[in-house]
Formats: sequence, structure tokens, C-alpha cells
Amino acid sequence: MHSIADFKKRVENGITGLTFNQEPKDLYEPISYMLSLDAKRMRPVLVLCGCELFEGDLDRAIHPALGMEVFHNFTLLHDDIMDNAPLRRSMQTVHTRWNPNVAILSGDTMFVKACQLMMMTDDLVVRPVMELFHKTAVEVCEGQQLDMDFEKRDDVSIDEYIHMITYKTAVLPAACLKTGALIAGASDADADHIYSFGRDIGVAFQIKDDILDVFGDDKKFGKQKGGDILANKKTFLLIKALETAIGTNADRLNQLINLPADNPALKVTEVTALFEHLGVRQLAEMEMEKYFQSALGHLAAISVSNERKKVLEGFAEGLMAREV
Amino acid sequence: MHSIADFKKRVENGITGLTFNQEPKDLYEPISYMLSLDAKRMRPVLVLCGCELFEGDLDRAIHPALGMEVFHNFTLLHDDIMDNAPLRRSMQTVHTRWNPNVAILSGDTMFVKACQLMMMTDDLVVRPVMELFHKTAVEVCEGQQLDMDFEKRDDVSIDEYIHMITYKTAVLPAACLKTGALIAGASDADADHIYSFGRDIGVAFQIKDDILDVFGDDKKFGKQKGGDILANKKTFLLIKALETAIGTNADRLNQLINLPADNPALKVTEVTALFEHLGVRQLAEMEMEKYFQSALGHLAAISVSNERKKVLEGFAEGLMAREV
Repeated sequence: MHSIADFKKRVENGITGLTFNQEPKDLYEPISYMLSLDAKRMRPVLVLCGCELFEGDLDRAIHPALGMEVFHNFTLLHDDIMDNAPLRRSMQTVHTRWNPNVAILSGDTMFVKACQLMMMTDDLVVRPVMELFHKTAVEVCEGQQLDMDFEKRDDVSIDEYIHMITYKTAVLPAACLKTGALIAGASDADADHIYSFGRDIGVAFQIKDDILDVFGDDKKFGKQKGGDILANKKTFLLIKALETAIGTNADRLNQLINLPADNPALKVTEVTALFEHLGVRQLAEMEMEKYFQSALGHLAAISVSNERKKVLEGFAEGLMAREV
Repeated sequence: MHSIADFKKRVENGITGLTFNQEPKDLYEPISYMLSLDAKRMRPVLVLCGCELFEGDLDRAIHPALGMEVFHNFTLLHDDIMDNAPLRRSMQTVHTRWNPNVAILSGDTMFVKACQLMMMTDDLVVRPVMELFHKTAVEVCEGQQLDMDFEKRDDVSIDEYIHMITYKTAVLPAACLKTGALIAGASDADADHIYSFGRDIGVAFQIKDDILDVFGDDKKFGKQKGGDILANKKTFLLIKALETAIGTNADRLNQLINLPADNPALKVTEVTALFEHLGVRQLAEMEMEKYFQSALGHLAAISVSNERKKVLEGFAEGLMAREV
């Protein structure tokens, strides 16, 4: 059995082995640039985890694993244009360093390259692997569109929010695990369980992210805390607060949302206090825990020895224990 | 045997049958909009032609045919953003009617939908069909990047130009014909010949386009004539003129290229006259004819009866005879 670190090393070697040093330069340099940025490589690692869980041959999973990483980076590249983001992993985004046209077209090319890597698997599984990949890709696009739509709405429900983060964030790790399982020849039931495990962990992870952005430990939390509050981002916390606040609390919340940007520290402090007061932090933690437990249930239901599940169990626990 | 018109009707029915009436609306409405614009449907028709030439079952080719049309429209959608084009087929472009973010993301989704349609073919041929599709998609992206690169260069050679239009324009119809052939179970040699036929016709078609933009019949030519001249577009004519002009002709050409935009009619008239004087119109017609004859050679080499080739032969002759 390999560790997550082993898998990550294997993925990094694979990424290095992908050569995009072709002409035209403006098409391929941004691809190499995106893939060279420091990254956790979580998605390709999960493909290898999924494969090893079912005693599959890792050599037959490595190319689809890299395909998932290239696809993920393609989505980041295009999302950065849409979000008008100047930085990605502390480095200039492609549309800033080059220009939006370069970012659109090298993104498109990355997507095709991802498809080519995904196809590099056995004939026996190529159709289910590609069908899952395409289905997931559509869902990720839908999730991004919903996220943009939510910015313009103030009546987003918790159900809609969960649906959005499931598509935008959670289905990709789920599909990664299932891809590894399919390549290893897992049964349909097991493949579905590992998919659900990945999806539910993904949802829990995103809710945790919402909580940390507001309540994270200042010293440990690298990025600016309260960024979601300042952007009035429709997180679990804000949606739940809007849903539960009545009377003066509701008035105060609306006041704070519409506060001008001249005193950001005040807005963060006041909204955070109101979230505490309304108890939405606890509600978010309960929701996160619900998804985490559901994920563990799916992992438990998989028909392999507990010994083999240890890596994924540890990985899930690690994600939930993170404080940044 | 079916006619081109029969195939077009079949494709139109197929397009109508594709339902993209899902949520989120801003993701799917632009896709339906793009596909509803009046279009020749040349690429999907070629898939069906390629299939019928080798006596294949058209029902097994129709979904990949639609996939090629969806892919083509995805490239138009993203190209329109990059070219900042306000209109497409006399209608507002997606990024104008909605916004660039919507155009990027619905374009991405269209590409996935194209992949899904391409996969809807027999297990026996799905790998070669997808490999050809992905290879072609990468080439189309490279062609678009080269076209943008050429705008900033004044030393583009004819070889580079032919390479660019081959990738940007010609490989897609070529791949369409070959996809039909693969589905019909054509031999490798025949599949390669029909690919080369499509590619060479595509190159001839683009050179014809360059010629018509300058020398087309005013009454028949719908769009503004001389558009390429006003944009200093690196067409076959301009590249050849820059290559062959010496002395006062070269000076005059450079003068005209750098002419301010205040008298467009003068620029078009003068550059057109200089092209005639330099004989680049004849050179372009010779080059076009060379590719057209090469295409016919590949069609002749295909091991099916001449009777079966009539539809494609007529189609090629029609493309070359067009005056608009």
C-alpha cells in the first residue's frame, strides 16, 4: 500500500513528464505555467487511491489521473478569467500575465489534452471512464454558472447552495475516486460507494472552508480572513443567517450586507458576531459533520478489508481536521 | 444514395432533437441560440457523406455528425470573443447578447456536449473516432492561435499561411469525412484518402475565400468586399504580394498598408489594382487549383465505384464554383 505522499510524488513526476513545449508558444506556455504552479494534486492522487483500494494496476490509472489534474487546471484557468482574479497560488493568473484571449484558447487546449489523457486507459473501461468524465465536466460548468448566478440573487436556499457546491467542487474528487475504481475493475456498487464517499467529503470540505474563512485561527489561516463576508458571498453561513434571522437581527444583517466598503474590519467583526449570535456556526458544523459521517458510511460499505481503507480514512480525517 | 440536401435535412432534424432546455438558463440558452442560427451544416453533412461513401449505416454516424457541428459552433463562440465580433450570421454574438463570461462557460459546456455526441458510436470504432476528434480539436486551437499571432507579424511565409489555414479551417471537414469512413468500416488507406480529400478541398476553399474577398462579384458578394484589405489581414494575396513586390511596388504596398483609415474605398481600390499588377491573383488561383486537383486525386484513389463518389465530387465542384 502506498501513502498519499507516494502518490503525490508519482503524480508530480507524471506532470513533469507531460511536455507542452510546442509551438505556438502563446498556446502552450500558459499550459506549462498553470501545471507548474505549486499544487496539492489532490484529484490525481484520489484517482490512484481509488485504483489501489481495489488492487488495480497503478500504471493503468496514472494517465487518467493526470487528465483529471489537467482538467481541474483548465477549470481554474477559465474561472480566473470569469472571476477577474489577479492571482492564483500567489502567482499571476494566465489572463493577467498574458491576456484573456490567450487564457481562453490555452484553456480550451488544456481541456482537449485532458480528454486525451483520460482516453489512455484500457478498452474495457474507456467508455465508462469517459462517460463519467464528460458528465462530471458538464456538472462542473453548471456549478460555476450557478455560483455566478447566486451573486445576483438574495433568495438562495440551503438546498440550492448544497447543489451548487456539489457540482462546482465535490463531483470532481468523487469522479476521480470512481475513475480509479473503474480502472481497477471494482463492482458497480463499490464504484458508486466510493463516488458518494468523495462527493460527501467534498461537500463537507467546502462547508469547512466557509467556516474557516470566518472563524479560522488568525495565526494559522494564511489568506485574508472574512473575505467571504466582505464579498457578501452566499456561503452556508450567510444563507443560513438570512434564513434564520428575524426582527432586529434581520435588520442588522441587511444593514451590514449593504455597508459601504470603507471599514472592512468593522463589517467582518460585526457579521462574525452576528453569525455566532444566530448560532449559524453550529448549524454549519452540524451540516459538515452530517456529510462527513455520510462519507464514512459509504467508505464502510465498500467490500474491501478495513486495512485497505486506512489511507482514504486518514485522508478524510486530515481534511476535516485542517485549520487552514 | 442520398443527396447533400437529404443529409442536411437529416442533420437539421438531429439538431432540433438536441435539447438544451435545462437549468441554469445562462449556460444552456446560448447553446440553443448558437445552434439555431442559420447554418450550412457542412461538417455534419460531410460525416454522413463519408459514411455513405463506404456503405455505412447512417444511424450510427448521426450522433458524431451532430457532435462535429456542436464542436464547430463551440469554436465559433470562443473565436467571436477573441475577435471581438459583434455579429455572427447577421445575429448578435453570444458575448454581445449575454456577456463574455457566459460565452466562455457555455462554450466550454458545448465542447463537453460535443464529446458526448462523438462517443455515441460503436465500441469497435470509438477509440479511433475520439483520437481523431481530439487531435483535430488541438489543431483547430493551434490554427486559431497562429491566426492571432500572424496579426502581429509581417514576415509570415506562404508555407506558414498554408499551415495555419490547414489547422484553422481544413482539418475539421477532413476529420468529419474520415469519421464517417471509420464508422462505416473503411480501410485505413481509404480513410486516409478521404481525410486528405477533405483537407485539400478545405485549403482550396480558404484560398478561394481570400480571392473572393478582393475580386468577388460585387452584386453577388453579400458581405463588404475588401474587408481583408482594410484589416491588413495576412491572406494568401497579401503575403504573396509582400513576397514578390520589389522597388516602387514594394514601397507603394507598404504605404498602402499603413494608410490611415479615413478613405477605405481608396485603399481597397489601390491594393486591388496592385494585386492585379503583381499577378498575385493568378498565383492564388494556381495554388487553389493545385489543392483542388490534389483533392480530386485522393478521391479518385478511394477504392469504391465512381458512381458512389459522385456526391462528393459534385460537392467539391460546387464549392470551387461558388462566387460568394
